[in-house]
Amino acid sequence: MSFLREISPLVKNMFLSERDVLSIRAAQIAAEIQQGERKNYNEVLDLSSGDLHRGGIKPITFVRQVLAACFYPALLEDDSLPFDVKQRANGLLRQCDGGSVGSYTDSCGIGKIKQCVSQFITRRDGGVPSSPDNIFLTSGSQMALMFMVKLLVQSEGSCRTGVLIPVPTYATFTEALEDQRAAIIPYQLCEEQGWTLQMEELRRALHAGRRTCNPVALYICNPGNPTGHIQSRKSIEEVIRFAAEERLFLLADEVYQSCVYREDTKFESYKKVLSEMGSTISSTVELASFNSASKGFMGECGLRGGYMELVNLDPAVKEYTRKLFSTRSSPPVGGQIALDLMTDPPKPGDPSFPTFSEEVQSIKNMISKNACRIQEVFCEIPGISCQPLKAGFFVFPCLHLPPRAIKWAKKKQMEPDMLYCLHLLEETGLHVRPGGEFGQRKDSYHFRLFVATHEDTMEDVLQRLKTFHKRFMKEFS
Amino acid sequence: MSFLREISPLVKNMFLSERDVLSIRAAQIAAEIQQGERKNYNEVLDLSSGDLHRGGIKPITFVRQVLAACFYPALLEDDSLPFDVKQRANGLLRQCDGGSVGSYTDSCGIGKIKQCVSQFITRRDGGVPSSPDNIFLTSGSQMALMFMVKLLVQSEGSCRTGVLIPVPTYATFTEALEDQRAAIIPYQLCEEQGWTLQMEELRRALHAGRRTCNPVALYICNPGNPTGHIQSRKSIEEVIRFAAEERLFLLADEVYQSCVYREDTKFESYKKVLSEMGSTISSTVELASFNSASKGFMGECGLRGGYMELVNLDPAVKEYTRKLFSTRSSPPVGGQIALDLMTDPPKPGDPSFPTFSEEVQSIKNMISKNACRIQEVFCEIPGISCQPLKAGFFVFPCLHLPPRAIKWAKKKQMEPDMLYCLHLLEETGLHVRPGGEFGQRKDSYHFRLFVATHEDTMEDVLQRLKTFHKRFMKEFS
Repeated sequence: MSFLREISPLVKNMFLSERDVLSIRAAQIAAEIQQGERKNYNEVLDLSSGDLHRGGIKPITFVRQVLAACFYPALLEDDSLPFDVKQRANGLLRQCDGGSVGSYTDSCGIGKIKQCVSQFITRRDGGVPSSPDNIFLTSGSQMALMFMVKLLVQSEGSCRTGVLIPVPTYATFTEALEDQRAAIIPYQLCEEQGWTLQMEELRRALHAGRRTCNPVALYICNPGNPTGHIQSRKSIEEVIRFAAEERLFLLADEVYQSCVYREDTKFESYKKVLSEMGSTISSTVELASFNSASKGFMGECGLRGGYMELVNLDPAVKEYTRKLFSTRSSPPVGGQIALDLMTDPPKPGDPSFPTFSEEVQSIKNMISKNACRIQEVFCEIPGISCQPLKAGFFVFPCLHLPPRAIKWAKKKQMEPDMLYCLHLLEETGLHVRPGGEFGQRKDSYHFRLFVATHEDTMEDVLQRLKTFHKRFMKEFS
Repeated sequence: MSFLREISPLVKNMFLSERDVLSIRAAQIAAEIQQGERKNYNEVLDLSSGDLHRGGIKPITFVRQVLAACFYPALLEDDSLPFDVKQRANGLLRQCDGGSVGSYTDSCGIGKIKQCVSQFITRRDGGVPSSPDNIFLTSGSQMALMFMVKLLVQSEGSCRTGVLIPVPTYATFTEALEDQRAAIIPYQLCEEQGWTLQMEELRRALHAGRRTCNPVALYICNPGNPTGHIQSRKSIEEVIRFAAEERLFLLADEVYQSCVYREDTKFESYKKVLSEMGSTISSTVELASFNSASKGFMGECGLRGGYMELVNLDPAVKEYTRKLFSTRSSPPVGGQIALDLMTDPPKPGDPSFPTFSEEVQSIKNMISKNACRIQEVFCEIPGISCQPLKAGFFVFPCLHLPPRAIKWAKKKQMEPDMLYCLHLLEETGLHVRPGGEFGQRKDSYHFRLFVATHEDTMEDVLQRLKTFHKRFMKEFS
């Protein structure tokens, strides 16, 4: 008897992620090093995911002090914790049933935290109103996106529901769409112009999509993952106008909103721009915006906390959303607390403020410096070109590989950038992800590099990369 | 433009839970009391969910100390925490990338914690081997169940996949099945014989199911929710033999395994019984068993931690399971830590052991006493009969309502037990759930009562219930 025959074909056909191959090999190498095997390097450097703490960045002290006090309220009697930490922990515990973070909460999240999030959004958007009623807390923005896809996708009927998604984009969202049997309609970002979104390309993609499915939503990732770009206000306006004309629901993944590094660059939310576009548009275009406690300078990926805000949704649809949430257990309370602290951090004058702002600033400075160094080094390496990092945690450099390398890869039945990444891992211990995982223009090759790590680590990474790349290019030239 | 037209019909048709009506009213009443409105009671008592901490039970000190130290490792320098707490926290932090609980973990959970879980299972089952490779950590047992349903359900093709589920059962699992478009095949538990599982009934249900769908799995909840029963070893053997004969996959929900109150009652896992049934059965029947950090004496619902163990699965199927997990972010690290502490609690001789065992014992004693008192009081009340509580967190008493009450409810287009619960809430502030939500035999009426609350609270609950019930019965007699 085997249950294999029973497995859902949806699961059977599931995207076999290339990251598995690389991750498995990375883990093996780490084990080999531990067992004393000699390599050209002392450790595997994992630059494959957007995980600040894994990259060696210390957690924000204020966040961890409040969490510790919430988990173990005896610490509220402790003199070593600052006054504002205790006050915040006390306030949060009052919102928990039985005064314990171990109780279930409302499945859309704790009311007071939703309020805190909506006040943050209003401040962020220069006064545009936000209601806690439109905020839904989840165990991460990915989960929130999945809820929205679930609501959007008509999985019955012959014509599949289509969602426009950028190329490149990160794989988990594509997988979620496939899982819900949505049709994926790719639109290419323009690498040569700094990964900008081109309206003709969006129109082309929509019209192509209409021939095979029923496109209902447009997904945007701004600031971009894996591209490190940020949309201009003009571009956001164009996208919103397009959504209005074509009656598309906007899914705005804005999880890197706090990670903007250049003086001349500013994050503006889709909601803010929408609110300033005149009432026929501002009151009709439906939008869900996503944010996360994993991706800011807090970097609390392990806590699992995210939220979405719904804008212009029919009240009946909001009811369905709430109903859908109510079928799930509450999001982890630790993640909810992280969202509270992220959206209402210490203010000037608070005892925790000096340490807090110093910690955040030092992470920002570090990434800014890394961004400059990456640019400098990539300029020196023939065969790599890289659009400047403006925001987010990643760059997505382009590999101009010699024809012999491409031919050799194809002979090995492997994508050329996958082959490059495997060799990079093997020879230098650097674990990055190949462009194929994110999608890329035919016959172009990339890799994604995590940039939010210590400056000296980054310098080491760049030197290993440079040496490897030169050798690789020489071998195949 | 409204996105309402786009909403997935699956979501539109979603089970409109009766608990919404009651929960909303309970929240309103709580608000009314806070605003100074006078009632016959000072507060709403929430006995609607299985949430220890909400019911006023204090968290286990050891658990919270370890969590606090993991979140804020500066506490490891603190003299106030016991040695074994620090040691455990240190060990756990070493398993986290970058030494931070804020990093992502493997999507199936931290390896060392899976090992800890499998060692617990081996001890629990008197030496039956368990491999960490078969353990999958999740954000709760419900999530793990959903993963398994996803693997099992063939949502394409004309013949739907069927799953046998008991009546009564808790609503969230039924919803998860409906969500995956599985066909639900109900089998009735026998209330008169203490909610036992009757083989003829199981056979009847399976054969009935085969006329309309393709039954592939049998779900069992043992110890039972909402029924408070526990299966005998003989009954488990019968079920396993049935699964072998009928080639059914077993989904064993064993989240209440540590909550057994009577001297003459013992929990035996499906896995253990299976392992002792002779090799043709023990090596072939496929089983997934579920457990949770929410439902033991730890009661950490808010942390979101659960696991499943797979037994006898085809290695290829296990690979699919792993693939399915890899499409999701890692389970919350706080929940994973809770599982580590649940499956490897302090031992005699450890500094934390005396407090730990005292805390656990006092919860056990409390529920045992409550179980006796409930039995005593329900015996005194005409019109209520209740099977004895043997395990778990709930009793599911039967209401023998007068015909006039039933008629009046039908006139109000309401289920009679829903009407009873609404009135109970309104007049006494007791918030319990009506039997209709869990399923029950036609023309029988029940409510589910949470029993894991302080003895004096429980006494108060029973007195309010008694007074209300007498009045209600008199009014409609």
